[in-house]
Parts: sequence; C-alpha cells; structure tokens
Amino acid sequence: MPQYQYYLEDFTPDASLELGSKTVTEEEIIRFAREFDPQPFHIDPVAAAHSPFGGIIASGWQTCGIAMRMLVDTVLSKSASIGSPGIEQLRWTLPVRPGDTLSARVVVLANRPSQTKPDRGTIKFRMEVTNQHGEQVMWHESFGMFLRRPA
Amino acid sequence: MPQYQYYLEDFTPDASLELGSKTVTEEEIIRFAREFDPQPFHIDPVAAAHSPFGGIIASGWQTCGIAMRMLVDTVLSKSASIGSPGIEQLRWTLPVRPGDTLSARVVVLANRPSQTKPDRGTIKFRMEVTNQHGEQVMWHESFGMFLRRPA
Repeated sequence: MPQYQYYLEDFTPDASLELGSKTVTEEEIIRFAREFDPQPFHIDPVAAAHSPFGGIIASGWQTCGIAMRMLVDTVLSKSASIGSPGIEQLRWTLPVRPGDTLSARVVVLANRPSQTKPDRGTIKFRMEVTNQHGEQVMWHESFGMFLRRPA
Repeated sequence: MPQYQYYLEDFTPDASLELGSKTVTEEEIIRFAREFDPQPFHIDPVAAAHSPFGGIIASGWQTCGIAMRMLVDTVLSKSASIGSPGIEQLRWTLPVRPGDTLSARVVVLANRPSQTKPDRGTIKFRMEVTNQHGEQVMWHESFGMFLRRPA
C-alpha cells in the first residue's frame, strides 16, 4: 500500500488551495475539440469569427480537463484519492479563448466519512477557474472520495 | 448565416434521441488521462490492478467528452447551437473500462425561450450513457443554448 501525504482527514472544511496556472493555446483548443466537441466555434477560426463568440473558444469540457490536471498535479497525486461520484453543479461563466492563462483554486465545503465503509469518505469541494483578467470562467461543486489515514 | 436542421423550437420536452455507440480502448484511456487526469488508476495498469477498481478505468471527464462527441455528431452539428451555460448535476455511476462499448441517449427536459434575447433560448436535457451490459455508467442534466428559427 503506497503512503500518501493527504488522506480524508486532511481535507477540512474551508481549507483552500491554489492550483497554479496554465496558458491555453489555439492548437490545444482545436486539437481537443476535433476529438470531443467539433462545433465550428471550437475548431474553425473563420466560422468562429462569425459566431456569437466572435472567435475560437475552448470546449467547456476542456476547461474541466485543464482544471482537473491542476488538481491532480497539486493535490490528488499526493492523496489517497479513489475517484469521484460526480458533480453537484457546474457553470461555464465566460468563454476561454486562445492565449488565455487560467488559474484555479479549490475550497473544501464538506467532509463526510462513509456510513457503510469505515476506510473511506467523501469530500465536497468548490473548484473556481479564472482567466488572466481575474474574471471567473468556470466553477463547479463536486465530490471526491478518499481513503482514511491507516491506523 | 448558415441554415440548420434544428433550432430552439425543434427541441420539444420529452423528445429523446439515440446518439449511437463507441468502444473505448486502453490506449485512448491512458492517452486522455496522461494529459488531463494522470491518477495511477487511469494511466498505470499495474497500480490500477492494486487500486479499489482492480484495473485501469477511464477518467470521468473522458466519458463526458465521448458523450459530447456523440451529441455533436448526431444533433449539434445540425443545430443552431451557441454553447452551454453549464451542468445541473452529473453522476459517474460505474467505472468505464478498456474495451467497453458506450451508448448514449438524450432526453429533452425543458425548453425556455430567453426573456431578454428574442433570438435564442435554453434547452435542459438529460444525457444517459450505458455500457455493453446495459448498465448506466454516467448521467447528467445540463443546459444547451440554441438560436430560434429565423422568421
């Protein structure tokens, strides 16, 4: 059994963590969207210029993936993480455009030991992603499951 | 202005659409997770075998992307789609494993013309994804924005 830095007990309500930042390129936006979300305003600069967005924007699912990668690098890679049952609510509040630098942070909202499995529990957290202008582009409130610290 | 097959008016409550199916390979699971969700049970077959999942499973975000691609190919590519404000709720109900064949369907839950912008409105829909055994692996209830049919 590997040893981890963070177990369920370590995610205390109101704790917050900065997850760093990442700049998103047009190449990355188009490559992601060609595979998962090939709508014209994600993959075609000319069509996107004539769309309500006025230019290429990232698929919202890519913003989810970018934030997840930051969460893994900063927190989950050092944690006894055992997956997630889901998302409580998510909003894409502003478009993400080529060249945007996204920063993310998470806040722990709740920590619930399992009623049936004494070795684990669930965290509810809020993820917030902002761009280089300090504008929020996405938030979600989601769950993560973690093992408890071994006795 | 391009012509579309489907506008806001065409998404009537209770309408449902089958979105086809896709088989997910181990290579695709590992490639996605290395970029967006590099947890051991998504990218390392040996570590995954010793995890609670007993083997490699797909990142839940990849399941979102696969379902999105099916939705684009079947519906949104023919629609006056102008993005999404977000997700109301999402649950990953069972792991997705290499070789699984995922099928998806959407059901329209509500159709709300905008109160402020007469050219558009919002659909609320439920997305359901099942595996080759007929077991549900993910569902979400989300929003999509569409232009109204031009007069």
